[in-house]
Amino acid sequence: MRILLSNDDGVFAPGLESLHEAIKQVAEVTVVAPDRNLSGASSALTLTNPLRVQQHKNGFYSVNGTPTDCVHLAINQLMPEPPDMVVAGINHGANLGDDTFYSGTVSAAAEGRHLGLPAIAMSLVSKSEDNMHAAALVAQKIVKHLQANPLASDRILNVNVPDLPYDQIRGFEVTRLGRRHKAEVMTKEQDPWGRDIYWYGKLGKELDAGVGTDFHAVSNGNVSITPLSIDMTAYSSMDSVASWVDKIK
Amino acid sequence: MRILLSNDDGVFAPGLESLHEAIKQVAEVTVVAPDRNLSGASSALTLTNPLRVQQHKNGFYSVNGTPTDCVHLAINQLMPEPPDMVVAGINHGANLGDDTFYSGTVSAAAEGRHLGLPAIAMSLVSKSEDNMHAAALVAQKIVKHLQANPLASDRILNVNVPDLPYDQIRGFEVTRLGRRHKAEVMTKEQDPWGRDIYWYGKLGKELDAGVGTDFHAVSNGNVSITPLSIDMTAYSSMDSVASWVDKIK
Amino acid sequence: MRILLSNDDGVFAPGLESLHEAIKQVAEVTVVAPDRNLSGASSALTLTNPLRVQQHKNGFYSVNGTPTDCVHLAINQLMPEPPDMVVAGINHGANLGDDTFYSGTVSAAAEGRHLGLPAIAMSLVSKSEDNMHAAALVAQKIVKHLQANPLASDRILNVNVPDLPYDQIRGFEVTRLGRRHKAEVMTKEQDPWGRDIYWYGKLGKELDAGVGTDFHAVSNGNVSITPLSIDMTAYSSMDSVASWVDKIK
Amino acid sequence: MRILLSNDDGVFAPGLESLHEAIKQVAEVTVVAPDRNLSGASSALTLTNPLRVQQHKNGFYSVNGTPTDCVHLAINQLMPEPPDMVVAGINHGANLGDDTFYSGTVSAAAEGRHLGLPAIAMSLVSKSEDNMHAAALVAQKIVKHLQANPLASDRILNVNVPDLPYDQIRGFEVTRLGRRHKAEVMTKEQDPWGRDIYWYGKLGKELDAGVGTDFHAVSNGNVSITPLSIDMTAYSSMDSVASWVDKIK
Repeated sequence: MRILLSNDDGVFAPGLESLHEAIKQVAEVTVVAPDRNLSGASSALTLTNPLRVQQHKNGFYSVNGTPTDCVHLAINQLMPEPPDMVVAGINHGANLGDDTFYSGTVSAAAEGRHLGLPAIAMSLVSKSEDNMHAAALVAQKIVKHLQANPLASDRILNVNVPDLPYDQIRGFEVTRLGRRHKAEVMTKEQDPWGRDIYWYGKLGKELDAGVGTDFHAVSNGNVSITPLSIDMTAYSSMDSVASWVDKIK
Repeated sequence: MRILLSNDDGVFAPGLESLHEAIKQVAEVTVVAPDRNLSGASSALTLTNPLRVQQHKNGFYSVNGTPTDCVHLAINQLMPEPPDMVVAGINHGANLGDDTFYSGTVSAAAEGRHLGLPAIAMSLVSKSEDNMHAAALVAQKIVKHLQANPLASDRILNVNVPDLPYDQIRGFEVTRLGRRHKAEVMTKEQDPWGRDIYWYGKLGKELDAGVGTDFHAVSNGNVSITPLSIDMTAYSSMDSVASWVDKIK
Repeated sequence: MRILLSNDDGVFAPGLESLHEAIKQVAEVTVVAPDRNLSGASSALTLTNPLRVQQHKNGFYSVNGTPTDCVHLAINQLMPEPPDMVVAGINHGANLGDDTFYSGTVSAAAEGRHLGLPAIAMSLVSKSEDNMHAAALVAQKIVKHLQANPLASDRILNVNVPDLPYDQIRGFEVTRLGRRHKAEVMTKEQDPWGRDIYWYGKLGKELDAGVGTDFHAVSNGNVSITPLSIDMTAYSSMDSVASWVDKIK
Repeated sequence: MRILLSNDDGVFAPGLESLHEAIKQVAEVTVVAPDRNLSGASSALTLTNPLRVQQHKNGFYSVNGTPTDCVHLAINQLMPEPPDMVVAGINHGANLGDDTFYSGTVSAAAEGRHLGLPAIAMSLVSKSEDNMHAAALVAQKIVKHLQANPLASDRILNVNVPDLPYDQIRGFEVTRLGRRHKAEVMTKEQDPWGRDIYWYGKLGKELDAGVGTDFHAVSNGNVSITPLSIDMTAYSSMDSVASWVDKIK
């Protein structure tokens, strides 16, 4: 089995290295990742400039683009044969609830899915790297399971691992995405020349983090696994919108 | 009613100007858009650099960032009072099916939604600007309807207008997102110095474009309105994933 | 006479507009400038990505590149016939002494020179725009002089205008470049996520600002005009280097 | 002796590695280089965004900025004590004649000079890496000479090494900068979506490449050493400009 690895923290991120160590033991791996930290890249495509590739001494490829670019380019051009699965991460920090919408890690997985492949997004709910090995082991176990029991072709698994050594992880839980409060307001500062600049604020606190959510799972020591779909259609709203649209024109 | 307008084609795009002309007749408007063409930006956030704002002679603000940055910054910092609605577009070209996942226009709307506001993404299914006025009129009519009949707070309307004069538009149709085939393979070229570069290929052709889809609506002369949700949880897959996750560890 | 105008503060900078107002009265003008503020761009070339051009309602062209890119592209591609002169500015702030090495304004002029044209770099020694009109008038007068008395083909005039109304300017003085002290140390800060970031510090104070220098001229109310050469050869050091090089191998 | 190494081809360029191998044998070295290929960066400063630093496994630091940023940041912030010299390169390709004005390699050296240090810019006149070792040996020999015989504090040595094995290099020659013809016209192409894009053309052929120039030296199998000054004042033009400036106002 061939597996494509990518991430959004950049080709030199320790989380990618840990993931590579763990997955190369169970599959043939190719690593294609952004040459810079692209956290927050969502599914951005680089359309106005061409992409360039560089191979590093460890065999990893870096691309001057986004996580989505990396996966798209890897599958279209860099890999002699397409992979059987895409695994993205291990993200330094959670991708819970609304984070998934902005996450380059989830988007790297989503791009694998767009190109017809099962895909996993791996995140460690910590900014420390102490338990990266545990998260890598989780990734390896999920990959091994999916090797024997393939994932439905139109699904992504969004996996968040609590900040614990592997043997202290309580279990694995299927979850739905929770919700955060809005991000803290942006900060307005001045650059050294007195011009106004704005920075994003910290992530919002949990808003919907009850039983069944990804927030709840990891805060209780469980690995959270949320199956994601990329069909954004709000089917449940179709009738109510239908009730008025034909009156507009 | 205060309405925030944005787009992903950039602050000087004719589609934004047309939208502004139409919406300022029915609401108080503020325009905050990227200073460059950011098509394909998805919901990318600019996290590693600060944002800067410039106001132009027509009153529009431009930001050196993504559509999501623009909406976030507008609501957090630039507008003295938050808007009541976000309208993004009018995109030069369709945002149908899988496009929505990558579209900066849809993402600008989605960011309004994240911040608690009803939001509309407007696109004209054409690369010509001939019928931009018709699309602007559609936007105006939908906004007027929603002024009287508010949209549920967690919904985005993704609106695609067929490339027709307004009086030739057949009607308005609620749709689900269709699907495209995978994009054509990337092209590999060489820059003037003989180094390999890669460009994205053209959009894929329709794959799922049957009755009920957005593709079908616009190809039949209807305005397509797809309600979107940003909860990516694949609820229908939760049971099947639950059947195996507890055996992994 | 056709004159190409450019700058490094970006296509919307008031200094460019003032320059345009003044020069269009004495020549046929084309304006091609960066779409963003590129202060400090030096003679950087955009080599890894292609350039794109946009024309604005006022007829100005903007380019997603550096000042050097703008001048190069204007002369090579955008102008039906090559210009007779390049005028860059009016820079918001001085380009004195060592500044010239980093200045995108001076570099825009230098690129005109590289392409065989006489060139002028205009700067107002102020961050306020109050006396921009005076600087524009200075530019106009110099251009008119050079129309009648052409500048030697391999020279750039670096012009700095003191922050005074035109009638309070004492006179025009030919100067040599002075020298600044090293820039203040860079500041080390943390971004909102606690990661180290570094910003350049303020410009250094004058080090060599005696009689005859550009610093001295403007601080005494004179317009400073420094003829610049782009041949960096240190002729006066050739002998001393020659004394040892043949012993190395 | 502490030596700072940098370049413009990026932190992973083989030329930087060769230079590091050669210089670490004769001095204590620190390497700080751009994280991407910044050829053509000239002395551009990154002023609108902050800089970030990453240390790699081989001990090299990369910066998300220009060669000038790297040298400035290294000396101001990264090195506990300032270096005694800056050596930039080994550039993959010549920096002869007018190239020096645009070269990020020469600019990295020039920034060392601005900060008060003797500096050397090293280039191999080849796009192949076959003789990189020879160029590294040349660098080492020049550094060793300067360790015993310091360079005047306001000089940069611009060194171009012919594409030969070390033992076939004829000798070392002090040169002045020659001149190239203007670069070939830019190419106008279309991106995959039919929009106009422009690329720089190839370097111009030699225009002034006679005896005494850097072009002549390397084409005759000699290492070219050109002492550079960063004082751009055209002293020889001061009188002629003086003859008219006081009549302008």
